[in-house]
Amino acid sequence: MAQQHHEMTAGEALSVYLQDQATEFLRSLRLHRESSTDAQGAEEALAAARSLRRAARRVGATLHTFRPLLDQEWTEGLRPELAWLSGTLAREHAYAARLDRLLGALHRLSTPAAPAVGNRAQPPAPRAGEAKAGARKPAGQLAVGAAKAAALLERQLTLARTRAHSAALQAFGSSRFHAVADNVAVMASEVPLRPAPDTDLKPLAAAADAHLTEAVAALPLLRAGHPYNAEALVHGLAADTAPEAQDAPWLKVRSLLRLHRYAQEVLLGAAPPDARLAAAGAALDRHREAAEAAAAAAAAARTPRIAPATAYALGVLHADQRHEVEAARFAFQQAWLREAVTAP
Amino acid sequence: MAQQHHEMTAGEALSVYLQDQATEFLRSLRLHRESSTDAQGAEEALAAARSLRRAARRVGATLHTFRPLLDQEWTEGLRPELAWLSGTLAREHAYAARLDRLLGALHRLSTPAAPAVGNRAQPPAPRAGEAKAGARKPAGQLAVGAAKAAALLERQLTLARTRAHSAALQAFGSSRFHAVADNVAVMASEVPLRPAPDTDLKPLAAAADAHLTEAVAALPLLRAGHPYNAEALVHGLAADTAPEAQDAPWLKVRSLLRLHRYAQEVLLGAAPPDARLAAAGAALDRHREAAEAAAAAAAAARTPRIAPATAYALGVLHADQRHEVEAARFAFQQAWLREAVTAP
Repeated sequence: MAQQHHEMTAGEALSVYLQDQATEFLRSLRLHRESSTDAQGAEEALAAARSLRRAARRVGATLHTFRPLLDQEWTEGLRPELAWLSGTLAREHAYAARLDRLLGALHRLSTPAAPAVGNRAQPPAPRAGEAKAGARKPAGQLAVGAAKAAALLERQLTLARTRAHSAALQAFGSSRFHAVADNVAVMASEVPLRPAPDTDLKPLAAAADAHLTEAVAALPLLRAGHPYNAEALVHGLAADTAPEAQDAPWLKVRSLLRLHRYAQEVLLGAAPPDARLAAAGAALDRHREAAEAAAAAAAAARTPRIAPATAYALGVLHADQRHEVEAARFAFQQAWLREAVTAP
Repeated sequence: MAQQHHEMTAGEALSVYLQDQATEFLRSLRLHRESSTDAQGAEEALAAARSLRRAARRVGATLHTFRPLLDQEWTEGLRPELAWLSGTLAREHAYAARLDRLLGALHRLSTPAAPAVGNRAQPPAPRAGEAKAGARKPAGQLAVGAAKAAALLERQLTLARTRAHSAALQAFGSSRFHAVADNVAVMASEVPLRPAPDTDLKPLAAAADAHLTEAVAALPLLRAGHPYNAEALVHGLAADTAPEAQDAPWLKVRSLLRLHRYAQEVLLGAAPPDARLAAAGAALDRHREAAEAAAAAAAAARTPRIAPATAYALGVLHADQRHEVEAARFAFQQAWLREAVTAP
């Protein structure tokens, strides 16, 4: 719905966006309920949960960015509840994606090399998400370690995912969730605006933009732009929480980039973001996923009584995923600096 | 000695170069003998062995590239003996350098992160060869694994180095070595040229250049030029010999680049190579050292009865060094394509 937003007041434009998202939230919720009672609806239930999260994320971000235009009490009550809901629903998907990523990487690392026909003719190395067909039987201590590492990760992350699934189902049935849904249903018909706000959409969107720019300026972009700077793995054997400190500013930019993107949607309608911001956002998504996958590999290596070959494979895997983190920073740097002036 | 080579015949120019190298060989040998009897001469003995290897390598390469100009029987007799000598002498140095590289990398990986003052202000991450001063006490299972891995590598590579040292000393006392030295002494006064060669220096140097160009053309340079292609670690958990196949063409280019460089020295005098070839050569040296360090980490991980934390640290270290291999390929690609026309 590419509305003519410049003909509307700030309150009207904000209402249109929030009502659209609320409607999407309620539609997804209905789909989720229908598919959950259907035995074959697992796929649809996942898709519905995804679009429900998507809408909840946008509503929450909009309540944050444009809070001076909205009823304060209502905003402050609803935002943490939406964050709780998004977080609860996101976990199942995150564990599934993490397992996929780690098994994909282990598969890439443990597939025997194709017989060399000529180096130029070889296709690029497949990365996470690659097909698993056609693998020849691996052999030796290394491959045994990789297989055991895969089994260990599968066990641990499937258990975590199952628990997250139960938690999500429990959340859907909770009175806390029903209160959120009621609130969103009210919003779908009328958004509680502040009576006489002393600001407009644009300065608030500009503030979101400024926060993003400030956070990007704090990133070590110069270093990230030098390939193979080995930064993401540094301190990797120091302490269990070592990467968190260096990852934090990147995760912060990821959040602020989303806030910026959703603010632009309010201003301009729900158009897809420009290619540059989309690439930057995708790089930061990859950053987060790889960082979490690396942490999961490190955590699995702390399982008591694992074989040294398993631990070795998990070490290789951890470093591989930290390398992905570094690659994601490089990709972000490249995307961000491509042409810095495209925002309207 | 920047001689006016274009006023000399091919045989004269070749003789000048080989006699210079033979003289250097004999001088280094004398220094080595003197420093070996001196209790404090370990440092000088190492330096003398290094320049002896350097001269042996150049003589061997020149005998190869310009063999149509030289007495065939003499060339074919001496070349394998020089290769044996260079190889024997190189091993001690290689083990020492490998241990340095691995301990440096482990130190980088296991140093706790400095307290964050602001991300932009942080200095670049130190790499292999960094100072070890100022490290705070590491803690936790990860750091214990890193410390145990360091101790294991130190034990294994120091033993290998000691053996290589003994082998080198034994070689210096052998009749096989004395035969090589006698041969080099003869060459220092007169180089056995072929009576009426049907070729000249330049076409032979051009052939060395063509071999190099051909080998570089077979490298996957396009892929190497894409940072973070994850190629060097692919198949890293497949079989113990997996990286050798993909490393081989790079090691071949390294050898051919040296042949090309020494051929240029014969033609133009022993001037340092141009910056582009020097950078390309340095990248390939780094490729070889990192590949061998990665193999040493993988080999150490196969030590029976090591702790899982040790194996994990060795896995991280292996992957780190394979990333260095990938970084070296990128550096080679960048150097090689900088300006492809600088050769005379």
